[in-house]
Amino acid sequence: MTTDRHFDAAETRDPEAREAALMAALSDQIARAIAGSAAWRAALGGIDPAEITGRAALARLPVTRKAELAERQATTPPFGGLTVTAPSALARVFASPGGIFEPEARRGDYWKTARCLFAAGVRPGDLVINCFSYHLTPAGSMFETGAHRLGCPVFPAGTGNSEAQAHAIAQLRPAAFVGTPDYLKVLLDKGDALGLDVSSVRCGHVTGGAFLPDVQAVYRDRGIDVYQGYGTADVGMIAYETSARAGLVINEDVIVEIVRPGTGDPVPDGEVGEVVVTPINPDYPLVRFATGDLSAFLPDGASPCGRTNRRITGWMGRADQTTKVKGMFVHPSQVAAVLARHPGVGRGRLVVDRDGAADRMTLKVEATEDAGLASVLTDALTAVTNLRGTVELVPPNSLPNDGKVIDDQRVYD
Amino acid sequence: MTTDRHFDAAETRDPEAREAALMAALSDQIARAIAGSAAWRAALGGIDPAEITGRAALARLPVTRKAELAERQATTPPFGGLTVTAPSALARVFASPGGIFEPEARRGDYWKTARCLFAAGVRPGDLVINCFSYHLTPAGSMFETGAHRLGCPVFPAGTGNSEAQAHAIAQLRPAAFVGTPDYLKVLLDKGDALGLDVSSVRCGHVTGGAFLPDVQAVYRDRGIDVYQGYGTADVGMIAYETSARAGLVINEDVIVEIVRPGTGDPVPDGEVGEVVVTPINPDYPLVRFATGDLSAFLPDGASPCGRTNRRITGWMGRADQTTKVKGMFVHPSQVAAVLARHPGVGRGRLVVDRDGAADRMTLKVEATEDAGLASVLTDALTAVTNLRGTVELVPPNSLPNDGKVIDDQRVYD
Repeated sequence: MTTDRHFDAAETRDPEAREAALMAALSDQIARAIAGSAAWRAALGGIDPAEITGRAALARLPVTRKAELAERQATTPPFGGLTVTAPSALARVFASPGGIFEPEARRGDYWKTARCLFAAGVRPGDLVINCFSYHLTPAGSMFETGAHRLGCPVFPAGTGNSEAQAHAIAQLRPAAFVGTPDYLKVLLDKGDALGLDVSSVRCGHVTGGAFLPDVQAVYRDRGIDVYQGYGTADVGMIAYETSARAGLVINEDVIVEIVRPGTGDPVPDGEVGEVVVTPINPDYPLVRFATGDLSAFLPDGASPCGRTNRRITGWMGRADQTTKVKGMFVHPSQVAAVLARHPGVGRGRLVVDRDGAADRMTLKVEATEDAGLASVLTDALTAVTNLRGTVELVPPNSLPNDGKVIDDQRVYD
Repeated sequence: MTTDRHFDAAETRDPEAREAALMAALSDQIARAIAGSAAWRAALGGIDPAEITGRAALARLPVTRKAELAERQATTPPFGGLTVTAPSALARVFASPGGIFEPEARRGDYWKTARCLFAAGVRPGDLVINCFSYHLTPAGSMFETGAHRLGCPVFPAGTGNSEAQAHAIAQLRPAAFVGTPDYLKVLLDKGDALGLDVSSVRCGHVTGGAFLPDVQAVYRDRGIDVYQGYGTADVGMIAYETSARAGLVINEDVIVEIVRPGTGDPVPDGEVGEVVVTPINPDYPLVRFATGDLSAFLPDGASPCGRTNRRITGWMGRADQTTKVKGMFVHPSQVAAVLARHPGVGRGRLVVDRDGAADRMTLKVEATEDAGLASVLTDALTAVTNLRGTVELVPPNSLPNDGKVIDDQRVYD
């Protein structure tokens, strides 16, 4: 039941009632995983699902890392044997960078984004302009399916051609925006430059990168309420900001742990660690998925917005060198793949910084100057990462010898 | 009820029964349009829906041209008052080039593509790789919603990054392809070049451009059954090829007329003319929509595949200079918009031809050589058409003085 302030009563229930419901669902999920998947049977063999009744028992289960997903999927396509719903019965399948594929089952709001849209002020019947990509990645579908669950029509605008998008905003008058944090500013600036009325947008939900204070101020000054969320392509929406603007409230039907990076051991409350997620998902029952993202629990207690679930800080960077550029993951293995296209070159280092509000990628490569080499590497960089970047040739042995292949120089407040 | 050879019994019914059902639905649609839309009331005022019981009565109704849609929508956003379902109750809205917006209602297979996918050999549970764009244009959604109606999961691959798409084919093993006619060849070649197994694709449906004999031969030689269709962003699927490969069978729930271009008068059977379509659509009740596309009826008689509906030839070009490049419309007004960015230049002429199997666009512009001008115009061309093209500066007064701004040099067999 949708109320004025909350998506449903689950968001304001007693925390102990939520915890009991989550732990019961967890036990069911483990039973379902063991029954329906040989891979989960192997991973969780010997575990009695009925005994997994609390956080301590959960913390003793093995974690599954993102890199492991890629390996399992390569060995046992398409999903590493970790799904219990047949591929032929799915609604959509996606391909993320790094050789990781994601299923989407035939259930409404599969990615659990309707609540975060509601918390951002989106209401039934509002037109949502969706500036995430629908191609290869699940990002576009994640928010479209949530908007549909909420009863909202969607304008699938995608990630480029801001001129056509600005014209469409003037004509279609969407009330809500979803996309990466910077991109609404790109559209508003484009609309202003073209003399178009883009004032219909009154709220938004953004994710896929840092939501910097200067960009937040731009939206605030225009009277647009924009909130951020945190999720992954594997599990969907994990936590989201609300009108309280006091941390990110953990999503319903998602179990979050914060562990010491590289281990499965929960850190003391408040300490920064790696986010490990167990989404309640009958089709793809991931158990203790290690995201590689850093965050921390806020002190217990209900959010001023009335939601009673635990809260975490926003995204605090990556536990490994893998990073996100323009909302897309970039892995050290991808930098290696680009360099491997031209065996003659030395070491490479992908520098990620900002050009104004937009992310910028520069691949520094140790090589003697060679006509055409930078162009070949530039093409390879785009082909491998699906992102545009610049290649800069530097003298041999001039890059720091610190083992770093991705140097993220962006500042997060 | 899906049979082995036909999507349902409607496809093989007695032609007179179909005609009676279509004319009854037409009468209902006109009544609904007049009751629910002031714009339709104005356009069809004084008409008694009960009297529209056959082709002759239909042929006396006014036609609505694509250019008129753009004008009506600009005056009365978002849909020119021609829809009877409220914008807030839609599933998706789209923005096509030329300032035309399209609604998609919350009904399964809104665009009527499930039948054409079935006719191409797609069966429930088959994974479909969808290489149409989901962004701005309805093309991606047109085929995804049809695949879902058929019970098929979809891999939304989009229009670019053939390397990532080829890798995904090897992992996900889709049985069916949808996209523009050339693009499956691009993917197969990329897969071969990368040493990937892309042999899972056994059938496909293509549209959005000419399906040339050399490309058809490539697919035939690989044992892939690929069929073409004809539709528009406004009405969805209009006619599609079947295993008979004898013309395009008109879709169920779509009324097709062939008229003398520029008029609303049906031509004698067999004569080439403009396709005018009345899709049965309770949400967006277009009546006599003039597509600007040329085609002709084939002689009456059931197709060898057993479908009993009338058939038309494939797309035979445009009644006006508007053309399609890489599946996207390009209008003379867009060429004018590019030139208007730089008042100093003379006339322009957009030459469309092929580079191998791919469409190619070259904008010839009369101008005295000027550093940077070609680059400015190239950027403008991309911004306005959402397509990449080359700009070639030619001497003043060197272009033919024949009023042509789009010169389509592609050869259609």
